[in-house]
Amino acid sequence: MTTADATQRGAEQANSARQNSPQTGSDPGAVPDLIQIAAPVAHEMQLVEEWLTTNLIDDSAFVGELLSQLFQAGGKRIRPLISLLASAASLTDEKVDPHHSRMSRLHIILAVLTELIHAASLVHDDVIDAADVRRGHATVNRRFNDKMAVLLGDLLFAQASICLARIMNPSVVGVYGQVLGDLCSGEISQMRQQFSLKVDFDAYVQKSIGKTASLIAAGAHCGAILNARSNEVIQALHQYGTNLGICFQIVDDLLDVTGSAAKTGKPVGSDLKNGLLTAPSLFILARGDELSERFAELVKTRKVENEDGLKEALTIVEEGGGIEKTKELAGAYGLKARDALNILPPTPARQSLSDIVDYVLVRSS
Amino acid sequence: MTTADATQRGAEQANSARQNSPQTGSDPGAVPDLIQIAAPVAHEMQLVEEWLTTNLIDDSAFVGELLSQLFQAGGKRIRPLISLLASAASLTDEKVDPHHSRMSRLHIILAVLTELIHAASLVHDDVIDAADVRRGHATVNRRFNDKMAVLLGDLLFAQASICLARIMNPSVVGVYGQVLGDLCSGEISQMRQQFSLKVDFDAYVQKSIGKTASLIAAGAHCGAILNARSNEVIQALHQYGTNLGICFQIVDDLLDVTGSAAKTGKPVGSDLKNGLLTAPSLFILARGDELSERFAELVKTRKVENEDGLKEALTIVEEGGGIEKTKELAGAYGLKARDALNILPPTPARQSLSDIVDYVLVRSS
Repeated sequence: MTTADATQRGAEQANSARQNSPQTGSDPGAVPDLIQIAAPVAHEMQLVEEWLTTNLIDDSAFVGELLSQLFQAGGKRIRPLISLLASAASLTDEKVDPHHSRMSRLHIILAVLTELIHAASLVHDDVIDAADVRRGHATVNRRFNDKMAVLLGDLLFAQASICLARIMNPSVVGVYGQVLGDLCSGEISQMRQQFSLKVDFDAYVQKSIGKTASLIAAGAHCGAILNARSNEVIQALHQYGTNLGICFQIVDDLLDVTGSAAKTGKPVGSDLKNGLLTAPSLFILARGDELSERFAELVKTRKVENEDGLKEALTIVEEGGGIEKTKELAGAYGLKARDALNILPPTPARQSLSDIVDYVLVRSS
Repeated sequence: MTTADATQRGAEQANSARQNSPQTGSDPGAVPDLIQIAAPVAHEMQLVEEWLTTNLIDDSAFVGELLSQLFQAGGKRIRPLISLLASAASLTDEKVDPHHSRMSRLHIILAVLTELIHAASLVHDDVIDAADVRRGHATVNRRFNDKMAVLLGDLLFAQASICLARIMNPSVVGVYGQVLGDLCSGEISQMRQQFSLKVDFDAYVQKSIGKTASLIAAGAHCGAILNARSNEVIQALHQYGTNLGICFQIVDDLLDVTGSAAKTGKPVGSDLKNGLLTAPSLFILARGDELSERFAELVKTRKVENEDGLKEALTIVEEGGGIEKTKELAGAYGLKARDALNILPPTPARQSLSDIVDYVLVRSS
């Protein structure tokens, strides 16, 4: 599917998602909330939660308390949820080895591992971005200092690598090893692209895979590896996770310019101000007209760092159709994610994986 | 053995080590240099070096170059050396499984893993300490910025956890998982002990295990685990590594006050200035006399942060016997490390493990 095709099909998808507002609660046809989505793996999600909030012990009471606070402060746990649902959705197969036919402790560890890596990278991101607030709580770097945050992030990565090693599956190890590398390389290449106009859609998608989609895709398909499923099923869930992850990142980048600070917790236009060109900006540059030129100048001269320049750039993004086109692009990736699920038997878990796509897309509307 | 016993025996050890100056080259009875020490595992050390300088590839050429520069900048590779020597020294046993009787790829990975964790923690330490120079080269945080250093450290931890997982041995995984946790907890507890007079020798040794000895001990005994050796041999090598590691840390702390900036690369008294009480200071506090009281006051009032206060504190450490007693303590741990080797058959590798103790101790003289 070309980007154009994807965009066209995505537009319908995005429109359909927008019609289903989350405010409509349990109305038929409404987008389910996360509790409904999690229903097929509610018990397992609880085990993950217990692991994160009570089992992450440390010899030092101080560190144990810090870790416990970090996870009690919340987060949607969308990564472990995707991982558990995909594990559950890839269980039902007659050909499957009976010894691998139920959700096991390894599936829980896989989900925990996925959240630990996410948490570690957030703690380090907050150091990198000098962020003060995360999920309504003061960040570790703010409450203590950068040193403590670097060390706490390291400790979380350490816990993650213990989980990874416990899974004792060479394929899974290979996948997560790549993910850890991708996460760092993704952030490093983002840093190096600041205020560069050389970013194109390919580079943008690659960076989004490294930063976001790689981890989500790992959680989504490694359960099927543990379930000893066919390569076809494993690849389909990998496709699902990758496309959902890209969709997720695009929606995040969209919220940065549409300014729903309540949803992102960041000031409007933070990315642009930092010289990071994401989908909405790339669509403007792709127009190849006067609007593109003016926009490029605002970035190149770093005028976007000042209030007036940023305001002008955001106006260009909106008036030049950057927001609408970005919504379509997110929808297109969401559709690709959902299409990938067709290979799986229709189960409540598969339905929930599909519902997560809507859940992500309605954030953009 | 009590601390008093250890100190007494250690004094002899330290004296004997001091008599063997490294400058005497290949004279009989002299302390061998690292090249001589490494001779029994020279081939394997080369494989480790190749892995570190060329095999650590990354999709991004920029990151690959950065990693390659980091390892080409040197370092003594003392941790992989200890690991390989201990692997070699624990090979010779008639009862050993013939499939595990030679140095294998896993022993190389174990050594690489140990150096990767060390390198990662150095890169993050340099962020934490805002250090500009390491091993005569500008640090990553200096050459680029803190962000890049946090990410590069993460990337090295990621590479380490790939190595760890590749070893596929649950015991080894457990050991290194604990090491990674210890490293962070050790640094965190050190941070929390700044300017606290509540530090005693127990807490100091615990912190030294976390910060330094835990990783050295892991490298030293995990080869024996891979060699399927008896628990007795494994424990002996663990003891060797732990005591050598504590000795190593004590010597480092000694060099901080004796001021061999050339050996440490840090200004004299850096630890004291930062309110970190190490062995030389603890011996002064343990005197329980007027000198102790004055020293405690200089720390409590943070006068050590200023040039005059630091100078006075360093003079007290020297005149109060803090340096001499610390040398004895290092010698005592060195002796315990060497004693632990007695269980092994006499091989060139065992001799080199013993020589490393001297190598570490002569740094203190």
